[in-house]
Amino acid sequence: MQKARPPRGFRDFPPELMILKIDIVSKIERVFQRYGFDPLDTPAVEYWETLAGKYGEEAENKLIWRFQDPLSGRWYALRYDLTVPMARFVASNPGLQMPFKRYHIGKVWRHEEPQRGRFREFTQCDADIVGSPYPEADAEIVNLVLDVMDEIGLGRVIVRVNDRRLMAGIFEEEFGIRDPVPVYRAIDKMDKIGAKGVRGELEKLGLSASVVDKIMEVASIRGSMAEVLEWVSSRYGSNPKVAQAVGHLEEMASLIDDKRVVMDLSLVRGLDYYTGPILEVTSEDLPVGSIAGGGRYDGLIGLFAGRDVPATGVSIGVDRIIDGGLEAGIFRAGKKTVTQVYIVVLDRDVYSYAWKAASLLRSQGFNVRIDLSRTSGQVQRRKASKMGVPVIAFVGRKEADSGTITLYSAATGERVEARLENAGKALERLLSG
Amino acid sequence: MQKARPPRGFRDFPPELMILKIDIVSKIERVFQRYGFDPLDTPAVEYWETLAGKYGEEAENKLIWRFQDPLSGRWYALRYDLTVPMARFVASNPGLQMPFKRYHIGKVWRHEEPQRGRFREFTQCDADIVGSPYPEADAEIVNLVLDVMDEIGLGRVIVRVNDRRLMAGIFEEEFGIRDPVPVYRAIDKMDKIGAKGVRGELEKLGLSASVVDKIMEVASIRGSMAEVLEWVSSRYGSNPKVAQAVGHLEEMASLIDDKRVVMDLSLVRGLDYYTGPILEVTSEDLPVGSIAGGGRYDGLIGLFAGRDVPATGVSIGVDRIIDGGLEAGIFRAGKKTVTQVYIVVLDRDVYSYAWKAASLLRSQGFNVRIDLSRTSGQVQRRKASKMGVPVIAFVGRKEADSGTITLYSAATGERVEARLENAGKALERLLSG
Repeated sequence: MQKARPPRGFRDFPPELMILKIDIVSKIERVFQRYGFDPLDTPAVEYWETLAGKYGEEAENKLIWRFQDPLSGRWYALRYDLTVPMARFVASNPGLQMPFKRYHIGKVWRHEEPQRGRFREFTQCDADIVGSPYPEADAEIVNLVLDVMDEIGLGRVIVRVNDRRLMAGIFEEEFGIRDPVPVYRAIDKMDKIGAKGVRGELEKLGLSASVVDKIMEVASIRGSMAEVLEWVSSRYGSNPKVAQAVGHLEEMASLIDDKRVVMDLSLVRGLDYYTGPILEVTSEDLPVGSIAGGGRYDGLIGLFAGRDVPATGVSIGVDRIIDGGLEAGIFRAGKKTVTQVYIVVLDRDVYSYAWKAASLLRSQGFNVRIDLSRTSGQVQRRKASKMGVPVIAFVGRKEADSGTITLYSAATGERVEARLENAGKALERLLSG
Repeated sequence: MQKARPPRGFRDFPPELMILKIDIVSKIERVFQRYGFDPLDTPAVEYWETLAGKYGEEAENKLIWRFQDPLSGRWYALRYDLTVPMARFVASNPGLQMPFKRYHIGKVWRHEEPQRGRFREFTQCDADIVGSPYPEADAEIVNLVLDVMDEIGLGRVIVRVNDRRLMAGIFEEEFGIRDPVPVYRAIDKMDKIGAKGVRGELEKLGLSASVVDKIMEVASIRGSMAEVLEWVSSRYGSNPKVAQAVGHLEEMASLIDDKRVVMDLSLVRGLDYYTGPILEVTSEDLPVGSIAGGGRYDGLIGLFAGRDVPATGVSIGVDRIIDGGLEAGIFRAGKKTVTQVYIVVLDRDVYSYAWKAASLLRSQGFNVRIDLSRTSGQVQRRKASKMGVPVIAFVGRKEADSGTITLYSAATGERVEARLENAGKALERLLSG
């Protein structure tokens, strides 16, 4: 006998989880469409060289699922996100009308060390705007993600915003830090290890005390976009990169009217390809980290296209939202079936009549199960109850002889005997009642 | 600059194809739900040993995308179908209530030699009934697939049915063929190479002329289930396997009232795991081969579970349906966007007013795009027309000053100026007209 487990770090989604997931994903999809995004799909598999050099060192060396085709010797990889494949798609379709707004809901794979809440396969819901370098595109992404969160019912969210150009202008140019990556990595831990911990890490990097002080000051700045931009301007506004970013972010802020958006100069985000505004979403209701993230990446498509194509977008981690929401009690995975009626067949003689009833109700759009187990009426009824089917229908000799069906509402206990031609109406009433 | 192609044998689905695909998949899903199937998801990646030994020689040696994790050395595989992962899932969840009816819509991967219409990644839509050994379960699968085809709008379909037990009883036991696989492989080509070609292949296998005659006679039998079962019974009904299959198929036939179902004793189907009735669906409207296939596989789950669990199901090849339907002109990939309104901004000054209008219409559930390109009104309008957006909205100084929006129907040419608070109603009328 073989082991029956999914690979370590992977998981199955049984019906009670999938029913919830389909509901949440369809809400996200609806908001994407309301904002004028259209669906795109790309393969799960890419050539290794398509993904190489896009995500940074850790992804490159460890986190991308690369593999060699044993037959051809060619190196492939499972996609690491939905952004790089989209960039490749845009580059290979030069006739696309700009701005190109696409959404993509699909799985991505990461070679993480499996641990609680961290999986090697998960679903991302991405929306990106390609072809607009303007702040209104970035603002639209922020508004989009807030509307998604409202639609899902995650009210207490925070969208943190920063800008890669501010980081480069201040840390690299103004502070003269030559190798900023370890500095960013330290700052990024602010929420986890606190200011004292970050200071400790910065000191270990051999930076002068005054530089560490200045870094710590900047990294502690957090507030409304207007407040933070004013502070940044007054301190570092003479730096050209900073000035450019401030202008862009001010225009962005003018189109975002939401207190849940804060600017946070300690926000880093790991991916290499960002070039402008970046954002990260958390929810105070969820015991998980970031549930969405994104930003502007004006250089990525150019790697494939050979011409600069600006782009900005967001990726929503729906599995994490589900896991967190279940843990926090915001969602319940209570629904085990989408079936609305379970037809209990009381007598083998009436099978073809019961089958006719099932077929009729299905043709009227109801989700119908009929017994396939040849067990007693009592056992069938118990099965239907255990699944939580809202209406149980009974078909026996009496019903077959009189051309009727007996319907029983599990919620109210109401029992109705309806003629077959009126069964749909009666059923509708029981389901809505 | 990097090459921007998807890997050979893989393909991107641009919006105009995805909009069509989402429509067709959601129709399939709706029928699955009407029949009382619930959604399941399993990982794309399985341990190699989970898939090994399930599909037959060609899959095992060549068609399964197996790969070694370069970090751990472990062998994995991309799933080859959705059936074996489901069998693994059922085995690892012994508490599942039987019958377990699940559907699964997802990608599968095959290491095919890429050629026209044959891809290395494609989407399958599967529905399976686990836990019922009875003919009514097989009949439900046949009725389900017919309803799916009706829902998609593929009227002229044929569901061919055969039974592995008939094949074993007649060819192996009655005709004494010890190594039936090459015989089945020859018979399977009936549609491609004709009776004469099949005879030629059989003769090469070193079978006696009388056995070849008998095989050719059986393989030519095709008709209604009732007709064929009568013929089989009269000729080979004394064989116990044949008798068992005939009884099962007769009960099945009593629950299928559809002339599109024919029994065809030349139907083979490649997969190793089938044990009872098998089925294959083609459409006279589509210039492609089989568009769905399935059957009973009572032994597969037992390989993981260590106990016999009967199961039957069908897999629908939605990509092939789309490709064939497009080629035959049944479907059109004409719709480039789901956007309903494109807001043309005539003046940069009124951006925030236009943004407010977009936000209002989105909150009313409309799919709205707003200009993000800062181009002239004329260019924006041309973009909207090219995308085929049904309603174009104009916002300029006049509209901003008077609190209105101008709506233009691309279909009828009608132009309406509506106050912002009434814009939703006006829009609805234009969209439905």
